[in-house]
Amino acid sequence: MTEQGQHRVVIVGAGFAGKYAARALRRADAHVTVINGTNHHVFEPLIYQVATGLLSPGEVATPVRELFRGQRNTDVLLGWVTDVDVEGHTVTATAPDGVPYQVPYDTLIVSAGTTGSYFGNDRFAEFAPGLKSIDDAVELRARILTAFEMAELTTDPEAARRWLTFVIVGAGPTGVELAGQIAEIARRTLPGEYRRIDPAQARIVLVDAVDRVLPTFSPESSAAAEKHLRKIGVDVRLGKRVVDVDATGVEFQAATGTERLDAMTKIWSAGVAAAPLARRLAAATGAETDRSGRIKVNPDLTVPGHPEIFVLGDLMSLGKLPGVAQVSIQGGAYAGRTIRDRLAGQSRGKSAAGKPFHYFDKGNIATVSRFSAVADLRGLHLRGLLGWLLWLGVHWAYLPKGRNRASSLVRWAVAFLGRSRSERAVTSQQINARLAVRHATAEAGEKEKTPV
Amino acid sequence: MTEQGQHRVVIVGAGFAGKYAARALRRADAHVTVINGTNHHVFEPLIYQVATGLLSPGEVATPVRELFRGQRNTDVLLGWVTDVDVEGHTVTATAPDGVPYQVPYDTLIVSAGTTGSYFGNDRFAEFAPGLKSIDDAVELRARILTAFEMAELTTDPEAARRWLTFVIVGAGPTGVELAGQIAEIARRTLPGEYRRIDPAQARIVLVDAVDRVLPTFSPESSAAAEKHLRKIGVDVRLGKRVVDVDATGVEFQAATGTERLDAMTKIWSAGVAAAPLARRLAAATGAETDRSGRIKVNPDLTVPGHPEIFVLGDLMSLGKLPGVAQVSIQGGAYAGRTIRDRLAGQSRGKSAAGKPFHYFDKGNIATVSRFSAVADLRGLHLRGLLGWLLWLGVHWAYLPKGRNRASSLVRWAVAFLGRSRSERAVTSQQINARLAVRHATAEAGEKEKTPV
Repeated sequence: MTEQGQHRVVIVGAGFAGKYAARALRRADAHVTVINGTNHHVFEPLIYQVATGLLSPGEVATPVRELFRGQRNTDVLLGWVTDVDVEGHTVTATAPDGVPYQVPYDTLIVSAGTTGSYFGNDRFAEFAPGLKSIDDAVELRARILTAFEMAELTTDPEAARRWLTFVIVGAGPTGVELAGQIAEIARRTLPGEYRRIDPAQARIVLVDAVDRVLPTFSPESSAAAEKHLRKIGVDVRLGKRVVDVDATGVEFQAATGTERLDAMTKIWSAGVAAAPLARRLAAATGAETDRSGRIKVNPDLTVPGHPEIFVLGDLMSLGKLPGVAQVSIQGGAYAGRTIRDRLAGQSRGKSAAGKPFHYFDKGNIATVSRFSAVADLRGLHLRGLLGWLLWLGVHWAYLPKGRNRASSLVRWAVAFLGRSRSERAVTSQQINARLAVRHATAEAGEKEKTPV
Repeated sequence: MTEQGQHRVVIVGAGFAGKYAARALRRADAHVTVINGTNHHVFEPLIYQVATGLLSPGEVATPVRELFRGQRNTDVLLGWVTDVDVEGHTVTATAPDGVPYQVPYDTLIVSAGTTGSYFGNDRFAEFAPGLKSIDDAVELRARILTAFEMAELTTDPEAARRWLTFVIVGAGPTGVELAGQIAEIARRTLPGEYRRIDPAQARIVLVDAVDRVLPTFSPESSAAAEKHLRKIGVDVRLGKRVVDVDATGVEFQAATGTERLDAMTKIWSAGVAAAPLARRLAAATGAETDRSGRIKVNPDLTVPGHPEIFVLGDLMSLGKLPGVAQVSIQGGAYAGRTIRDRLAGQSRGKSAAGKPFHYFDKGNIATVSRFSAVADLRGLHLRGLLGWLLWLGVHWAYLPKGRNRASSLVRWAVAFLGRSRSERAVTSQQINARLAVRHATAEAGEKEKTPV
């Protein structure tokens, strides 16, 4: 409950930025309200492991309330924030029952994150979902695993090949990690389980319009990652722009003309767009947005003309800062500290001006497959096992709470030392409600099925 | 692949009965095909732990293919079996893309299990879902956890009380275990996480029309379980028949007349009905069915007049055998052995007649809360910690595969020694697509929400 007259900080979104901002306010003389659209904070760097059956949703999703249990000045509300009234200093959110509610603020932090972007081709979404949420991860997992089942069921070798072809569009870290994991599912987890198909024959295609994988990494790391991807049998196709996606395949534009690739399973990891709230906020404040719809902020991460509104994480646009977890984490901590210092300064009669946000680039790291990762650390390039051990240490250390660390280690041992994967359940609801409709349309040509 | 002329056994359903039947056929001179509607075998006795956030779906759901990976004569197909042609010796299944396919058999095992039964009141289903599948478990978990969120959001104390009231209809093992776990969520897991409500004030009501909990257990165990439930604050209401369920509550018929209880979250664990396939099979074979639609079988678990068709598990009706996991396990193993012996006997020129199925009652066990369970073991009644340690040992031993055992132990330590629960993610899809619609209707009266 808010004490009378206490400064009210409202944080929209409990991703990395929101989490670290709230944390930095734990001893501030303020009442903090975190509003999030689900009940959990997602550890995004590992969400691809949920999509590929390594980890369970609970291992990458920590209840927001649990994060702030001991932080008595912090309140958590479940709701989708739909609008900000910058004059009235109020945000409007929708409760799970569809009823809107208002929350007043003195300082507002908007860290509502991104959604996938299809660069204007939203019709691709149903055929090539992205990977931003637990819902996405569980849906992708169902599609990947069911594809092998469909290949086993069909008697048409052409159809089987379509089912065993997986196309990942976008060769950033998520695309590379997904490609590597699907290759491991096909070559390590599933062999021996099928009687008609050989899962190891699956074709995993990683496509990008740019000319190297992991374009935000050093050229050395990109080259090492590409080499390892090819070694584990990923078909890497660079300099190819995807111009169409439908139920049964994708079309690329390359220097040599248009090519089509038949594939039932497509995954989109090519682009992100700011959450819809950014547009509302930009309209209300007159702030400029960049191409992805992110809001251009001042060096202190506030909206021009609105020192009481911070925009953080993937929603903010500042110089050439990349959309990575570390920018969100450091930006969140910075904003939280700035607000705390303002409040302390006010009480001591100081001005509100602070130092601008300075991003400390800790480096980049991406796993290609088990025991192999590439890392760029301030001039140092690690690869292979050494990179992977660093990946393991860093991710393990950043995973929230001891219990997720313990169970994740068990899961990783299962998958990396053994061949199994812990989370492979595809439910009837997934099969009936979603795949049925889509695939029935897609496979209208393939009627004959007498598998025994 | 079927060898020419090899005996073909088709098993419909990969629950306990199907799993143990297939296992018993691993060295038989037969080709075995297991057809299942999902890609996993569910360890049903622990599914309530998925519904209450203790375990992840993967920890109670083992891929059917993984179970039979090393069993070379066994084939697994994903499909919903919709019909049996007993003349043509063929089953018809539907693939995930909606396209039907046929599988011929020489011997058929039907172990398709049960669905929840509302005793003719199917309109209850949307308000009080049951707990049979992973889908059900994940849905119930979302409802339970979201109820606390809604209670925190509302400013109407009446509405908060409705959201904090949980009614479990049916006091069999699943009902008792769910009531105990919801009580632990409210009193151990969530306290300290909310600022406006006290989750420990939640009211958990366990209702049954019969006059004791766990009616299939000994009277001593029923009494001990009831006493412990009351001790942990479960409101046990016996001898009350539920006559209506709607969005905001339930109505019971008691000796004293009709009572209404306001409750947003209702769970149905009161009855089961045979899977729809049983009706088709009964019609095709002329077999009798019991009140729940289960097929009455011969003492050797075959359908009268059809020695080539076995009906097992929760789908079979034989004497007074209860619908418990042990009947399925032992019946499955018996049927598998019978078929194996028939085939071996045929090759040695012997007749097909075997010994009738004899059920060995190993006893009953149910957990009430952490460190407390009741068990009936052939005249011996254990309760409290001793019963609970037995429960732990038995369930751990029966859990398939080492990896589930390892990670379940971690989860149990987290929850039973600590206060946390590993799997609490409620996704936006769950919130938007399902709860929104239902609760918007339900709460039409409760419009005003200004939580801060």
